[in-house]
Amino acid sequence: MRASRTRDRLLDIGLRELSVHGLERVTLGSLARAAGLSKSGLFAHFASKSALQIDLLDRTAAFAEGHVVRPAMATAEGLPRLQDLVERWLGWSKRARLPGGCPVAAAMFELDDLEGDVRDHVVALERRWRALLLALVERAVQVGHLAASTDAAQFVWELFGIYLSHHASARFLRDPEADRRAKAAFDALVARYSLDGGSTPKKDKEKRA
Amino acid sequence: MRASRTRDRLLDIGLRELSVHGLERVTLGSLARAAGLSKSGLFAHFASKSALQIDLLDRTAAFAEGHVVRPAMATAEGLPRLQDLVERWLGWSKRARLPGGCPVAAAMFELDDLEGDVRDHVVALERRWRALLLALVERAVQVGHLAASTDAAQFVWELFGIYLSHHASARFLRDPEADRRAKAAFDALVARYSLDGGSTPKKDKEKRA
Repeated sequence: MRASRTRDRLLDIGLRELSVHGLERVTLGSLARAAGLSKSGLFAHFASKSALQIDLLDRTAAFAEGHVVRPAMATAEGLPRLQDLVERWLGWSKRARLPGGCPVAAAMFELDDLEGDVRDHVVALERRWRALLLALVERAVQVGHLAASTDAAQFVWELFGIYLSHHASARFLRDPEADRRAKAAFDALVARYSLDGGSTPKKDKEKRA
Repeated sequence: MRASRTRDRLLDIGLRELSVHGLERVTLGSLARAAGLSKSGLFAHFASKSALQIDLLDRTAAFAEGHVVRPAMATAEGLPRLQDLVERWLGWSKRARLPGGCPVAAAMFELDDLEGDVRDHVVALERRWRALLLALVERAVQVGHLAASTDAAQFVWELFGIYLSHHASARFLRDPEADRRAKAAFDALVARYSLDGGSTPKKDKEKRA
């Protein structure tokens, strides 16, 4: 029980470090220093640096689940739920009170050219996230909120572009327009796949409001 | 003269390391080891770790200039030039024979929550790149290839999303569809801002061919 509480505390500290500094700089040594423990004490909780990193990535996923996915599931299915999830997803790390950006987005650029367990784990998390978004888009098609001809995989691919461009413009460039730009991009993506082929995006907006 | 050749060789080695490992792991020590020099020998060429990182980022920009911008400038101005530049930009690091991904894209996620000279330098490089793209989009409007009502800043913002989503899907997820998805996204973006408001993207495609 006590070991589990210590482990939770370590993961909380580690996740905050991860969101600011990235995977490379979160090590057993850095976490021991931040928690005021000995490095050998850390080994009681995490077998290796990569085991710690994987646990931190799982904690990230659990955080995103609680802050983004679960609340969105309370919204009516179809386009309203997809839209609600996207609004919660953009900038989620700030609302989850992490001091930095999204650890998974950063990991995709940090680990792209490296191999190993940690990379494989991020790929699995990312695939799961994309599958969730794909299911939401497909459901919006099934219930008639998006056109039957919608290329759901293309929709999700472009949605990731909106997320990453928002992350870069909001967090890195600190552009005050980031939220507005992301919303305009998402609205245009929805309009493109709306029932009438995107020629009347305004009508589509009213429908969703 | 000799010092300048050594410096060039060090920057070449450093840029290859940077593209694989990211800024955090390219240090005077790592570069000295890779080049077979002493760390004190490195100080003759780079005053500090951050000076080295800034020089490497400038070398990245010079590489992108040579591999992406200069050749695109030979294409007819307006939409053809914009399209040519985007094609050369997507996946440019591979064609520039770097062993890893785009150092500036990675830096935007690595440095988003850190402060300092290196971050400021990446912000400046990124702003310069966005200004170049903005000028190309505005020129395509001026010569009548895109609608006068085009929101050029929104166009560029979404174009960055396409670039980042392509980087993540091609390099991190190793998705064989990445090029095709990026092209479809770019074509849709152009169609949206085409003269007839994007209702006939096919016609627009023919026009560009």
